[in-house]
Amino acid sequence: MKRSIHQNISVDCVIFGFDSSELKVLLVERELHDEKTGELIFKDRTLTGNHIYLHEELESAARRILDDLTGIDDIYLEQFFTFGSPSRISKEKDKQWIRSQGRNPDEHIVTVGYFSLLDINRVEIKHKDRNVAWYPVGEVGELGFDHNEILDKALSTLRDKLMKEPLAYELLPDKFTLTQMQTLYQAIMGVEYDKGNFRKKVAKMKYLIPLDEKIVGNAHRPPRLYFFSRDVYEFTRKQLFDFSV
Amino acid sequence: MKRSIHQNISVDCVIFGFDSSELKVLLVERELHDEKTGELIFKDRTLTGNHIYLHEELESAARRILDDLTGIDDIYLEQFFTFGSPSRISKEKDKQWIRSQGRNPDEHIVTVGYFSLLDINRVEIKHKDRNVAWYPVGEVGELGFDHNEILDKALSTLRDKLMKEPLAYELLPDKFTLTQMQTLYQAIMGVEYDKGNFRKKVAKMKYLIPLDEKIVGNAHRPPRLYFFSRDVYEFTRKQLFDFSV
Repeated sequence: MKRSIHQNISVDCVIFGFDSSELKVLLVERELHDEKTGELIFKDRTLTGNHIYLHEELESAARRILDDLTGIDDIYLEQFFTFGSPSRISKEKDKQWIRSQGRNPDEHIVTVGYFSLLDINRVEIKHKDRNVAWYPVGEVGELGFDHNEILDKALSTLRDKLMKEPLAYELLPDKFTLTQMQTLYQAIMGVEYDKGNFRKKVAKMKYLIPLDEKIVGNAHRPPRLYFFSRDVYEFTRKQLFDFSV
Repeated sequence: MKRSIHQNISVDCVIFGFDSSELKVLLVERELHDEKTGELIFKDRTLTGNHIYLHEELESAARRILDDLTGIDDIYLEQFFTFGSPSRISKEKDKQWIRSQGRNPDEHIVTVGYFSLLDINRVEIKHKDRNVAWYPVGEVGELGFDHNEILDKALSTLRDKLMKEPLAYELLPDKFTLTQMQTLYQAIMGVEYDKGNFRKKVAKMKYLIPLDEKIVGNAHRPPRLYFFSRDVYEFTRKQLFDFSV
């Protein structure tokens, strides 16, 4: 059975990945060729997204699209914002692209944004369909549609979460060095921290527990390993900010 | 110029209000009458919401609907979640209602949820259009469409924010008693706190500053007033959870 496309609703996934040094985002190549001559009209990149089917759940659509493009079918996705500005599709090349898909660029299309954050070293892209690749978040250039705006909003949501929830420790190994931790924070926040100040802050955070173990190697002063105690974190947070007993 | 309605997109507003003792939500009455006889078919309540116009911004639509229904035109609205399940409109009376508006209940309609929290004592509903009133959140009964689900999601978003952000102090007077504060927390969280435990917690929170002033009156032991220090709150939070310098 051929499923009908919902003309007015799409989903877009902002899949962030950390590769131990940089924050990256998964983008898909978009190429428009002349129907007759086959000549390339333009080539650029967009977030992973597409229209949903009529009577399809929003999150199922997001998962289906991600799976079709990348073979990644089992990651945590969180809905973060819905974009519905009538000026979303105003660039001529976006209109051309939509027409080439047999759709009407003057439709008022609303897109529901999902985001995820994963460890690039632990995930394998299977490239089922189009060209999909990781790009550093600061080097994405001009994306199709309003996808730069969607990426910016996802990034600010991610940064806000990093400050309010113990998100960082899901991307760090169970035992980590302060250099690994500082690298992760810098990558996501997009800023450089002073090493001394960063370590002074860590020393105050009782939920970051220094271990006796050190990384084995040839280093003159092997770095100390730390452990994140979720119990101490929750206790500290609740004691200071939460009135539920 | 008559504006066309977007057949597939609506917005719904969950307007929470605190009246110094209870958490309430703004609901609108929905009445369906037989077209010929005028006889009442059903009467129930929904959140304040409606379809958007084609080429209208989502947030503008939310504000327009709220203004049309209540005359409230200037409150803080925050987008919190988009609901797009194909089973959203499955009850027979919801289908009847949609048909009575000249629309097709088999359309796959996605609704974008906005929420707000305001002080009922400081806002005046002007009842511009339909019957709109405040209801305690625990006594809303069965709402139209999937609005119980939307209300639940808004409530859990609000509770989560109350634990992670200094939201409570926007609804309390500048100087408040611990009883006022406990009442607010209980109303939003939907639980009762033990008075002694609540006060023990407050004593640990350096950003809640006891004043020398007390409420003047005939009470044998007039209650002490407290003040919320945003500076101390931010300092405490940053010192313990935030690595930005």
